Amino acid sequence: MALNTESVVADFNLLTGLSKSKESTKRNLSRMKGMFHDDLSFDELVNSESDPLVYEFYELDIPQTAGDILFGTSIVYPGKVGGEYFMTKGHFHTILETGEVYYCLSGDGYMLMENPEGDWKIEKFEPGQAVYVPPRYAHRSINIGEQPLVTFFAFRADAGHDYGTIETKGYRKLVIEKDGKPEVIDNPKWK
Amino acid sequence: MALNTESVVADFNLLTGLSKSKESTKRNLSRMKGMFHDDLSFDELVNSESDPLVYEFYELDIPQTAGDILFGTSIVYPGKVGGEYFMTKGHFHTILETGEVYYCLSGDGYMLMENPEGDWKIEKFEPGQAVYVPPRYAHRSINIGEQPLVTFFAFRADAGHDYGTIETKGYRKLVIEKDGKPEVIDNPKWK
Repeated sequence: MALNTESVVADFNLLTGLSKSKESTKRNLSRMKGMFHDDLSFDELVNSESDPLVYEFYELDIPQTAGDILFGTSIVYPGKVGGEYFMTKGHFHTILETGEVYYCLSGDGYMLMENPEGDWKIEKFEPGQAVYVPPRYAHRSINIGEQPLVTFFAFRADAGHDYGTIETKGYRKLVIEKDGKPEVIDNPKWK
Repeated sequence: MALNTESVVADFNLLTGLSKSKESTKRNLSRMKGMFHDDLSFDELVNSESDPLVYEFYELDIPQTAGDILFGTSIVYPGKVGGEYFMTKGHFHTILETGEVYYCLSGDGYMLMENPEGDWKIEKFEPGQAVYVPPRYAHRSINIGEQPLVTFFAFRADAGHDYGTIETKGYRKLVIEKDGKPEVIDNPKWK
């Protein structure tokens, strides 16, 4: 209980999503092996001198109880692997029956969601748009623009992250650029 | 469970906090009788032609389960009653052990918090500043600036609002303008 009596403050720049007071967790492309559909383009980009930063996000030090809320910003940088847009790994919550809100601060993209029963949905991110991911849905942010896609997120602090299911099975759908526009297609690698 | 399979989207202007697609709940000053310390100034303002809008906020149609997250924006308008700044009524959560995050989008103000044991805290709102209200703390937003104070909030959807305790007892502390600056003082009306 002692921890619960602390209030927590954190700054997140409203345009860039970056914090001056907190350290982010960074995901360079090399950390996402097998998650994009074009392995050849993936290898080329990872083996280039850059191994680009695909996204970063903040994890605050808040007690992970069912009554607490974890929050922070997520920043997905612009880029593509083959024709597939830069995105987050995506995850289920370990406590599957917990939802999450993402409020878009800047950029242009999508939230791609799917549940274990095979239902999927996609919603648009643009500045000022809030997307609610209902309980049971894995969720992944996808940047289809030229600027960073920045969202502020909040979810139950004990929800936990299950990345493994997505890493093993993949998503049913993916978003690629076709004729200069985003298109949702079936994931050829989905298991 | 059926309701849980819907994703929800909502737009909230990043500067004004206002939504084009959702209806807000509005609190004019007349709805806050007894909550400001200067009853004479309160009566004058309420009985004026304006009965000013003190704040408004959004309540979305999300299932109120322990796994869902309620979110929206809160907009506190600039103004004062006597020397006391415009503020929200403030509330405990009915499920006391639930926290809430407020992310400031624009404006200048404070989050004033107190728990049933008598501990209180105050944190500053400025654009880009997130304030986490820990479980057990009543919370009230106070606008000390010349522009609307706009925050994006998120909390557990089943937490509920207990306004009655604050309406009956008041807050231990209040924030007034003194010599042109905000000052935290003991609430003379606190019971």
